[in-house]
Amino acid sequence: MARILTLTLNPALDLTVQLPRLEAGQVNRSDVMHTHAAGKGVNVAQVLADLGHQLTVSGFLGEDNLQAFETLFAKRGFVDAFIRVPGETRSNIKLAESDGRITDINGPGPQVSEAAQQALMNRLEQIAPGHDAVVVAGSLPLGVNAQWLQALIVRLKTLGLNVALDTSGDALRAALKAGPWLIKPNTEELAEVLGCEVVSISAQALAAERLHAQGIEHVVISHGAEGVNWFSVGSALHATPPRVSVASTVGAGDSLLAGMLHGLLSADTPEQTLRTATAIAAMAVTQIGFGIGDAAQLAQLEQGVRVRPLTEQ
Amino acid sequence: MARILTLTLNPALDLTVQLPRLEAGQVNRSDVMHTHAAGKGVNVAQVLADLGHQLTVSGFLGEDNLQAFETLFAKRGFVDAFIRVPGETRSNIKLAESDGRITDINGPGPQVSEAAQQALMNRLEQIAPGHDAVVVAGSLPLGVNAQWLQALIVRLKTLGLNVALDTSGDALRAALKAGPWLIKPNTEELAEVLGCEVVSISAQALAAERLHAQGIEHVVISHGAEGVNWFSVGSALHATPPRVSVASTVGAGDSLLAGMLHGLLSADTPEQTLRTATAIAAMAVTQIGFGIGDAAQLAQLEQGVRVRPLTEQ
Repeated sequence: MARILTLTLNPALDLTVQLPRLEAGQVNRSDVMHTHAAGKGVNVAQVLADLGHQLTVSGFLGEDNLQAFETLFAKRGFVDAFIRVPGETRSNIKLAESDGRITDINGPGPQVSEAAQQALMNRLEQIAPGHDAVVVAGSLPLGVNAQWLQALIVRLKTLGLNVALDTSGDALRAALKAGPWLIKPNTEELAEVLGCEVVSISAQALAAERLHAQGIEHVVISHGAEGVNWFSVGSALHATPPRVSVASTVGAGDSLLAGMLHGLLSADTPEQTLRTATAIAAMAVTQIGFGIGDAAQLAQLEQGVRVRPLTEQ
Repeated sequence: MARILTLTLNPALDLTVQLPRLEAGQVNRSDVMHTHAAGKGVNVAQVLADLGHQLTVSGFLGEDNLQAFETLFAKRGFVDAFIRVPGETRSNIKLAESDGRITDINGPGPQVSEAAQQALMNRLEQIAPGHDAVVVAGSLPLGVNAQWLQALIVRLKTLGLNVALDTSGDALRAALKAGPWLIKPNTEELAEVLGCEVVSISAQALAAERLHAQGIEHVVISHGAEGVNWFSVGSALHATPPRVSVASTVGAGDSLLAGMLHGLLSADTPEQTLRTATAIAAMAVTQIGFGIGDAAQLAQLEQGVRVRPLTEQ
C-alpha cells in the first residue's frame, strides 16, 4: 500500500440531470438529479483508494459549496489538504435526455488569488514528505497560469516526489518543461502540445523519445477503445482492452492513470501494470460512474486485456 | 417587531447559469454561475427579516446539500428548525442566454418519509408557541400529500397561530378546507382551485365571500403589473403598483406576501399595509433578486402605489 497525494487545481461539482427532452425557453422537469464531487485528481484518488492506497487530496476548493467534497473525503478516509478560496467551485451540468443526447454546461469556477496559490505551495511543502507519489490532474482555475504549474511540479520534484501529470493544452506544454515522472495524454492532447500528428506508432515512439530526453520517464498514450501505448525508457508496450458495452466514458482516463500508478508503486511487472490499468479503465466504461466495486469483474476484464510489446507489429 | 415562522416544505437550491447561447447536444461554457438557497418560505423570511422581524424557518431539507441554506440562515440570524431528510434538496436550474431566453430545469427533490413528516409536526408543536404568525409557502415534496398539509394547517391553528398560505393546485384546494387566516393566490391559481374564472372584480368578490365563509379572513389576489386585490371581511382594496422596469419577477409574490404580513402584524392601516406590500413587490421586480436593500427607494415606490376601495369602480 502506498501513500499518494492527488492535486486537483480546478475541481468540479458534477450535476447530472436526466430529463425526457430539453425544451429551450420552457420550464422543464427532471425526474433524476444528482450532484457529486468530481475533478480528475479527486477521481484518481477514489480509484486508488479502491485499490487499497492511502490518499491525501489537495488543490483549491470554493468555500461556498464544500459539502459534497467534504462528505466524500470523510467517507473515503482521504486526508483533506485542499486550500479553501472565496466563491463556488464550478458546477459542470450534464443534461441527459432520454434519446441519449447530452448537453454539457461547464461553469467558470472561482478566481484563485496569488495568496491562495502561495498557501497551496506552503501546504505542499509541509505535507509532501512521506508520500510515495503525487498526481497533478485536470485544468487550471481562473488566476492560475501555466508557469505556476510548471514551478509547482519543479517544487514537488525537489521535495522528492514522483509526479504523474494529466492535463492538456498550455498547462501540459508548460508542465512538460518541468520533467514530470509520468504523463498520460490521449493522442489529441499530445498532438496539440507537440504541434504534430502522433497517430502512428513510429510517430509516438519518436515523441516519447524526445519526452524521455526531457526526463519524463513514462509516456502513457491513451486511445480509447483502441487501447493504450506505454513508452518507458527501454520498453514499449501496447494494451488492447476487452470489448465492453459502453455505459459512460466518464472517469475512464482517471481510472487508467490510477491503475498505472498502482502497478508502478506496487512494483508489478510492466506487463501486469498495463494489463490491470487497462482493465480498470475498461471497467469504468461499463459503469455510469467509475471505480472498482467488483474484484471478480476486474479479474475477468484483466483476462480479456491483450498486452504485447510495441516492437512486434 | 414580530416573531414569524415560515415553512418551506419543498425548498430549492436555485442555480442561475448565464451563457451566451445554449447549444443542445454540445459542450457549453458559462461565464457566470451562482447557487443560492431558495423556496417561497425562505424568500418570504428574507424579506420579513429586511423589515426587522425575527424569523424561524422550517420545513424539509435534503441532508446532502445543506451548505447554502445553513450559511444563509446563519448570515440572516434565522432560527433553523428544518427537518433534515436523506437525499438532496432539489436544484432548480435557470439557464439565461444573452438574448434573454430563459430555460428552466426543475429537479425532483427528496422523498419525504412519514417519519420525517411526523418529526416536523413534533418540532412545530415545540416551537410554534411564541410566534405571532406562520407562513406556509410553496409546493409539496415527494411523499407529502395535500391531506397532510390540511392537517398541518389545522394543527398550526390549534397551536394559536395565524396561518398565511401561498401554494397552488391540489395543495391549495385541500388547505383551503383548513381555513387559513390569509391566502395569496394569483388569478390563475384561484381559478384553477375554484374551477371558474375569477378575472372580473365581481367574480373575485363572490369567490372571496365564499372563502370568508370558510374562515379565511384575508384573500389577497395578485395580478402582476395590474396590481393586487385584497378582500377582507367588510373591506376590499385594490392597489396599482408604479410602473417599473422589470429586471426579474423572481420573489415578487413572496415579497407581496411578506409585505402583507408585515402590515397586518404591525397594525398598520389596511391602506398603508397594501401600499407598502405592493411597493415591496414592485421593488423585487426591479432587481435580479429581491429584498429591501434601499429604504429610500422603497419609500419612493410607495408614493407611486395607487390604493383605492374596490367598490369605487
